[in-house]
Amino acid sequence: MKQFTSVKDVTDLRAFVNEAIRLKADPFAFQQVGKNKTLGLIFLNPSLRTRLSTQKAAANLGMNVMTMNIDKEGWALEIKDDVLMNGTTVEHIKDAAAVIGTYCNIVGLRSFPGLKNKTADYDEEILRKFIHYCKVPFISLESATLHPLQSFADLITIEEHRKSKKPKVVLTWAPHIKPLPQAVANSFAEWMSCTDVDLTITHPIGYELDRKYCGKATVLYDQDEALKKADFVYVKNWSSYTDYGKILSDGQGWMMTNKKLELTNKAKVMHCLPVRRGLELSYEVLDGPDSLIL
Amino acid sequence: MKQFTSVKDVTDLRAFVNEAIRLKADPFAFQQVGKNKTLGLIFLNPSLRTRLSTQKAAANLGMNVMTMNIDKEGWALEIKDDVLMNGTTVEHIKDAAAVIGTYCNIVGLRSFPGLKNKTADYDEEILRKFIHYCKVPFISLESATLHPLQSFADLITIEEHRKSKKPKVVLTWAPHIKPLPQAVANSFAEWMSCTDVDLTITHPIGYELDRKYCGKATVLYDQDEALKKADFVYVKNWSSYTDYGKILSDGQGWMMTNKKLELTNKAKVMHCLPVRRGLELSYEVLDGPDSLIL
Amino acid sequence: MKQFTSVKDVTDLRAFVNEAIRLKADPFAFQQVGKNKTLGLIFLNPSLRTRLSTQKAAANLGMNVMTMNIDKEGWALEIKDDVLMNGTTVEHIKDAAAVIGTYCNIVGLRSFPGLKNKTADYDEEILRKFIHYCKVPFISLESATLHPLQSFADLITIEEHRKSKKPKVVLTWAPHIKPLPQAVANSFAEWMSCTDVDLTITHPIGYELDRKYCGKATVLYDQDEALKKADFVYVKNWSSYTDYGKILSDGQGWMMTNKKLELTNKAKVMHCLPVRRGLELSYEVLDGPDSLIL
Repeated sequence: MKQFTSVKDVTDLRAFVNEAIRLKADPFAFQQVGKNKTLGLIFLNPSLRTRLSTQKAAANLGMNVMTMNIDKEGWALEIKDDVLMNGTTVEHIKDAAAVIGTYCNIVGLRSFPGLKNKTADYDEEILRKFIHYCKVPFISLESATLHPLQSFADLITIEEHRKSKKPKVVLTWAPHIKPLPQAVANSFAEWMSCTDVDLTITHPIGYELDRKYCGKATVLYDQDEALKKADFVYVKNWSSYTDYGKILSDGQGWMMTNKKLELTNKAKVMHCLPVRRGLELSYEVLDGPDSLIL
Repeated sequence: MKQFTSVKDVTDLRAFVNEAIRLKADPFAFQQVGKNKTLGLIFLNPSLRTRLSTQKAAANLGMNVMTMNIDKEGWALEIKDDVLMNGTTVEHIKDAAAVIGTYCNIVGLRSFPGLKNKTADYDEEILRKFIHYCKVPFISLESATLHPLQSFADLITIEEHRKSKKPKVVLTWAPHIKPLPQAVANSFAEWMSCTDVDLTITHPIGYELDRKYCGKATVLYDQDEALKKADFVYVKNWSSYTDYGKILSDGQGWMMTNKKLELTNKAKVMHCLPVRRGLELSYEVLDGPDSLIL
Repeated sequence: MKQFTSVKDVTDLRAFVNEAIRLKADPFAFQQVGKNKTLGLIFLNPSLRTRLSTQKAAANLGMNVMTMNIDKEGWALEIKDDVLMNGTTVEHIKDAAAVIGTYCNIVGLRSFPGLKNKTADYDEEILRKFIHYCKVPFISLESATLHPLQSFADLITIEEHRKSKKPKVVLTWAPHIKPLPQAVANSFAEWMSCTDVDLTITHPIGYELDRKYCGKATVLYDQDEALKKADFVYVKNWSSYTDYGKILSDGQGWMMTNKKLELTNKAKVMHCLPVRRGLELSYEVLDGPDSLIL
């Protein structure tokens, strides 16, 4: 695999998941694989789980890891081609990525969307250019539109907890005070659409995700209806895709509570974290017996 | 030992110190101990000595280290329970600590006091919650009220330089322009109170430390009187505990100088660093033959 | 070698370059050399290439690396001697360097000039004091006036691409919108002056470098004249040394283009990066077949 940016980069998803589950049981089985190999982790945005878990995984494989908050510890990046760089950007992405590629055997990059310009964000310009110029195998640590490591981990969690052959999985929008990317929701929808589950997506009117990630998912504006008989409930806020980057609703009534979970088939509850407690989900759900958030 | 937050977490202090002294003489004796173990160092505040020395110690033990400035590289933490998180905090400490605990075998945390609310600071809410939720062995890298790694190192230094069975140790307040935590002073008093030394604490009126850390220490407002026949002089500023977090005095006359040291029994001089030169101690003392600051 | 701050620290430059070329071909040949050794990399300013390449090199030698952005993760440093530290600086360089030296076997430091006070910058006060107080072998990761690691890498590149015994090397000033240090230019001139090349330096009037770095170099104000028959063209902006730290010219006509390269002997083009594309060099040059920037 030369790049991991989407479920589309995975040739055999079932084998991929099974291998991950085996590796979880024996995390030090491949300590020689990474000998003399260097992983570069480049962050344009904050990261806790992705940062630490990827470092830990690399250490388990015997790799050397170099982590860099490139905008703070290095130089502000220019993304556009053929511009006269007489402004605030100090280094072109083509030069930075190429240099990083010469020092690393694998590179990971986190780059959030600006949420101002849909076309630019969904074009994944930063991701594409970084991959193109670094010239080494690449892992997305969350891009403008997708978060494949998160969704891969979510799929493993569902595999480990599924009780039926084709569980009902509900992705439900939740309230938030800030406009968030659609990346986790897009990615979750995309991965679930490639898996043997019955996927329902529910959100207020105006929060429709880009259809290309949603496969055959049922989309409902009625959260209660959507939650019925759910086996897994994945809670996540995202800003509007159609009215791009906007918050259209205060989300009154959309917070996940124990009351709402009564509608489900004793569903397990998931969230990618960080979570705004008392806003996206109630404390009782997050700390309850059906929470899989950790 | 499941946690190291205070001298109270040490079962046998003498054995603990002796083991440290042996390890200093042979720092690579236990390089296999840390194999496949990960230490997470989480900083909410700046750190130089604690940061580097802990990393170095972990490397000597063969551990993998992951260092994170969580507020800058991750997310702003919510500490209070059961609040609606619709403000500036992005992640609850219970979620962040729990996640970090899953990636690490040991976790260290640095968390300074706010110096606004005595009850909150002395309740050590951040420390307690982090320990509770991370669920792995924990090391304090300085908390709101104590700095045990510093005091442990100070005790080792005193052991290495003591000339009598029960040396006189003086903890003296020093001037500063900013309100500083009481943590180093509290901790030094606490550790010295568990050791076979004669401890005197001296400071201007109003700078009394919380008595619970001071054991049988003599407290004097007259620095000259306190310094008489001292074998060790530990210099440190702290803000008022009673008039909490305040600077009550410009400290005129409290700076440690060679002149003052003439009152002592050729005392060795200590300071935890960073030190404001020319304000807390004179250059001549810091750079003199009796300085043990390095 | 106890310190690497300038070409003057290199005893036998030819042997030094040859050893580097051999090591490039077999980067893991000395993995035991660094066992149980710690390299501390201390940054007062941003760094991408120097940061990552030095980390990588240390990993190849089996060393433990501790990287620290000291002003952000530690404390603001006081540089002046014998001052009363009652201002914004928290720790004296003599204490910080000394402490870092006790944790590390080798220390590297990056410290840019202020570009306000020529005497202070060219006195290299920070560098000198850090070396003096850390008391361990020292590597400059770019100081106020020199960038020896960069120039050493540049020399290796020239060695690898030279076609004649004594190639013509041209260091040419380029336009920029911010006042930059003279360090890379000084250092390049200094290293080239110790090598068997024919060095020409070209820049607008007023951008003369400190002669002490320039050896027997020819200095021309006419860039076209300078470029004639060049085998290597090294492009770099710097601010004025005589009218210290100032930008004297908008540099109209000084950007390196393919048109200008026609004057040369099919010259290879170099730049230390980061580069302002479209300002210092044209995209066509940077991305062209004669670019050695990577």
